[in-house]
Amino acid sequence: MDKRTTYCGLVTKEYVGQEVTLSGWVQKRRDLGGLIFIDLRDREGYVQIVFNPDESKEALAIAEKVRGEYVVTIKGKVVERHESQINRKLKTGEIEILASSIEILNVAKTTPFYIEDGVEVSDDLRLKYRYLDLRRPEMSKIIRTRHDIKRAVRDTLDDLGFIDIETPMLNKSTPEGARDYLVPSRVHPGHFYALPQSPQLNKQLLMSAGFDKYYQIVRCFRDEDLRGDRQPEFTQIDIETSFQSAEDIQTMTENLLKAVVKKAKGVDIPTPFPRMEYDEAMARYGSDKPDVRFGLELQDVADIVVDTDFKVFSQAVENGGQVKAINIVGGGKAYSRKQIDALGEFVKVYGSKGLAWLKVEEGELKGPIAKFFDADKQAALTERLNGNVGDMFVFVADKASVVAASLGALRVKVAKELQLIDEEQLAFLWVVNWPLFEYDEEAERFVAAHHPFTMPNESDVALLDTKPEDVYAQAYDVVLNGYELGGGSLRIYDSAIQAKMFKALGFTEEEARAQFGFLMDAFEYGTPPHGGIALGLDRIVMLLTGRDNIRDTIAFPKTGRASDPMTQAPSTVSDKQLDELRLNVTAKEE
Amino acid sequence: MDKRTTYCGLVTKEYVGQEVTLSGWVQKRRDLGGLIFIDLRDREGYVQIVFNPDESKEALAIAEKVRGEYVVTIKGKVVERHESQINRKLKTGEIEILASSIEILNVAKTTPFYIEDGVEVSDDLRLKYRYLDLRRPEMSKIIRTRHDIKRAVRDTLDDLGFIDIETPMLNKSTPEGARDYLVPSRVHPGHFYALPQSPQLNKQLLMSAGFDKYYQIVRCFRDEDLRGDRQPEFTQIDIETSFQSAEDIQTMTENLLKAVVKKAKGVDIPTPFPRMEYDEAMARYGSDKPDVRFGLELQDVADIVVDTDFKVFSQAVENGGQVKAINIVGGGKAYSRKQIDALGEFVKVYGSKGLAWLKVEEGELKGPIAKFFDADKQAALTERLNGNVGDMFVFVADKASVVAASLGALRVKVAKELQLIDEEQLAFLWVVNWPLFEYDEEAERFVAAHHPFTMPNESDVALLDTKPEDVYAQAYDVVLNGYELGGGSLRIYDSAIQAKMFKALGFTEEEARAQFGFLMDAFEYGTPPHGGIALGLDRIVMLLTGRDNIRDTIAFPKTGRASDPMTQAPSTVSDKQLDELRLNVTAKEE
Repeated sequence: MDKRTTYCGLVTKEYVGQEVTLSGWVQKRRDLGGLIFIDLRDREGYVQIVFNPDESKEALAIAEKVRGEYVVTIKGKVVERHESQINRKLKTGEIEILASSIEILNVAKTTPFYIEDGVEVSDDLRLKYRYLDLRRPEMSKIIRTRHDIKRAVRDTLDDLGFIDIETPMLNKSTPEGARDYLVPSRVHPGHFYALPQSPQLNKQLLMSAGFDKYYQIVRCFRDEDLRGDRQPEFTQIDIETSFQSAEDIQTMTENLLKAVVKKAKGVDIPTPFPRMEYDEAMARYGSDKPDVRFGLELQDVADIVVDTDFKVFSQAVENGGQVKAINIVGGGKAYSRKQIDALGEFVKVYGSKGLAWLKVEEGELKGPIAKFFDADKQAALTERLNGNVGDMFVFVADKASVVAASLGALRVKVAKELQLIDEEQLAFLWVVNWPLFEYDEEAERFVAAHHPFTMPNESDVALLDTKPEDVYAQAYDVVLNGYELGGGSLRIYDSAIQAKMFKALGFTEEEARAQFGFLMDAFEYGTPPHGGIALGLDRIVMLLTGRDNIRDTIAFPKTGRASDPMTQAPSTVSDKQLDELRLNVTAKEE
Repeated sequence: MDKRTTYCGLVTKEYVGQEVTLSGWVQKRRDLGGLIFIDLRDREGYVQIVFNPDESKEALAIAEKVRGEYVVTIKGKVVERHESQINRKLKTGEIEILASSIEILNVAKTTPFYIEDGVEVSDDLRLKYRYLDLRRPEMSKIIRTRHDIKRAVRDTLDDLGFIDIETPMLNKSTPEGARDYLVPSRVHPGHFYALPQSPQLNKQLLMSAGFDKYYQIVRCFRDEDLRGDRQPEFTQIDIETSFQSAEDIQTMTENLLKAVVKKAKGVDIPTPFPRMEYDEAMARYGSDKPDVRFGLELQDVADIVVDTDFKVFSQAVENGGQVKAINIVGGGKAYSRKQIDALGEFVKVYGSKGLAWLKVEEGELKGPIAKFFDADKQAALTERLNGNVGDMFVFVADKASVVAASLGALRVKVAKELQLIDEEQLAFLWVVNWPLFEYDEEAERFVAAHHPFTMPNESDVALLDTKPEDVYAQAYDVVLNGYELGGGSLRIYDSAIQAKMFKALGFTEEEARAQFGFLMDAFEYGTPPHGGIALGLDRIVMLLTGRDNIRDTIAFPKTGRASDPMTQAPSTVSDKQLDELRLNVTAKEE
């Protein structure tokens, strides 16, 4: 084959008069009045090739055999298009190439779907033929934007003196956190490695080793059931620093994200990002990762409704629960009775028993529960919720976690339905001052809200033994448009505090030692104060390319059942392989 | 703690008169005439801190409590040292810091070994306390050079339009090549993923997807017994391109390595690298990765010795084997009888039955086998081997593979013993035109010399069915100082040739389809001609930092038995974990 001289998508007017050689895929062939037109595609775009018997009969004859997705190399002269033929939407739309020769490098069968943007095919088919799916310009662009983002991350961190250090994929399995993917050891039968859920301990040890500023764009793994935008393997921008304050780390992260957004979207985002305390985020938005692009904030109305005859409200308050409301501005008209019922069904998914509502009409509130509220109460509610005629109040009464989850999700749903969201806006936010623990009702014990290595607030250390639920942490999450982009914290670097932390999590001293002894040892050999952050690369790419699932940001993702329709992974393996690992399979999926 | 204003190792004369704040580790404390001197270390180097009662009694009192590896922050004024105290070996040797305050951030027990270069401790102890081992400046420097090398790779490839694309870690297990690390699937009981030995198929599919220029610095895995400089996980610079010739890929690789060496050693290496055919490398050096920094080449002497009475030689030739010799220049004096015996033992490891030898003396060859060669033969040998008085000829007679392995290894051993190697030289070399197959005597079948996706030479395709041993491949290895840095090839992109290849490797059609059907499919939907290369990052770092094992280039490596003395990985896991994976362990290491 002749060597290509440039990319198809880059042949502009400046090439006119030049001879070029191009290699690519046939997007389309049209035969018109004895001529053949081919749109030739490569990673940079399309260009139109014309085959014409005056130029080369031989080339025309070969071009006749060409079909969609054939791989060809063509040679020809760049000429201006007739004024009437100019396509201003295309970078190459002012020119075309008069082919003098064409070579077919590979043929192609008819593809199972069109190689073009916006095809409507099943995810499974796209994944089975991922190499065809990725030929579609919109998909190709995401993967290239992902590269641009990684490059911006690396350039920014490299220039700040961060050192990219690789940590192991074959680690020790630890009981805290999500489920590990295990890797059986052949050399040590009955023993297993675990793939990393994050390089947390390794990066802390690198701080003990004195590297001071570490980063890595690193694959992590979680063997959990995959809902929404989860994948079994995902990529993390992992960062750790020594001798820095939480504010230092947040500022660095802001500068990093500024560089990333600039690269991906050409936009300057303002810094510093707003800070919001965890408790405030939960109170106002019912979420630890609030989307602040719109209002619909939660309002506490317990004090107003506690002494009414509407038992659902009054009893919730008496039982230590909450009653909160959102004013859906204009919701009185926007929502029919049937649609309100649907909202009621929606909140039940979050554990709520139902949704109460009131519409604001001239001089009064109307709705099934209006009768429970006298004029004073109605006025008080209207004032608290800043209601105006045409608005609708929706209420959830339950324990705090259910109220937050229900109304937090509802406000996002309503905002989408009423198109209250400016899709162009990038609303970054820090959520700070997190609780150190959350109570796991299933396990009936406290678990770490972030992870067991998070530093409690200094003033709260004494409460670790006595009131763990009151301990706050030097932890911070960065949120964009309602998604958690990443989370970080200062870390414990004192073995005594770390021991208290393990105890609060229900570890015996022996268990803590067996699992994390090497970390506690490191703390006793001069480990510096340190902290860091981890950002989800897949999600960043998703949000900055305007997609709604992370599968589209990953070249070869897995399905919701963690399988690959293309290679058929995971697969059965030979008895020899299992014998070498000293493993028996006790139940096999057919 | 106060915020550090610069790094310890960066405080030079320009800072004199300034107040600085530094954080780091106490390398050494000396008490002298009422003063305390501390060498404070951070990642950039050391600086001397002086505590003096006139400056601050309080700081002096705290400094008295400080021990080695304590983590401290100090504040003080930079002053010039007295002329007599200047240490020109140290970047900071012209100044010292008069401390006004010191804060102890963390204490340290006595470390199990000194934090300094060249410590003589066992590898196991170093790995158990890897965070201390990495504090040693020589180790810290390797990890930073590794980062510099990666940065040079990325900058070079990014600027050439390569796209960094991440490929999966959870793949399908394939029977060809080395042993896979398996990952049991919980969602699909009895099914397993495999960790990648290389992203070979994925990168080929990315070419089918049209990305045109791909790279990735990627973790790969091989569950093989670890000899020499192998690790269960290793890092590969993985590259693939479309529409490029083997020469294009070699030139790109040369430019890449040029940038890497420039970054790591500040040296310009000449390009293009010499090319040597595989057959010539084997003939002249007995190795497919010859160290060409020295001579000691192999000479074929079969024609001279075949008709002598020394049966070892003559029969070897008659049986289709070889007789080859090396002239060890000056070896007559350098090697005693006992040392020659040791060389004889050495070659036995490579399957040879022994080493014959002759010393060149005035007018004749001497040694136990001299009597078998008359004056003419002796003259012929001396001429062939370019012998002079004082030299020694060593011979191995056996089948070709044993002769090559024995003499190939022997020439390296002798060159080291006689110090014939210029350690500063970087002898890059391409070994090209490889056989497509090698015969696996154990499996009694042909296996791929590189991998089953390597493109045979066009003219040899017809031989695939009939004489696979005569098929050569469009494959190339890049070699540095006797180490294979990486290997690459043009790939098959035609499903018919790929099918022939699988057949030659002993696959039935069904087996090939079951394992690699998706690749053969991709070839039928317009896959372009493509090829690439993969370079071993660990080995590149090892050679450019002058180390002799890759463990030193990896932050957290495994032992020779694939375990981690620090975390105790791999470890046993809970019954719950095994139950979820539907696995039974049939034999357990205690």
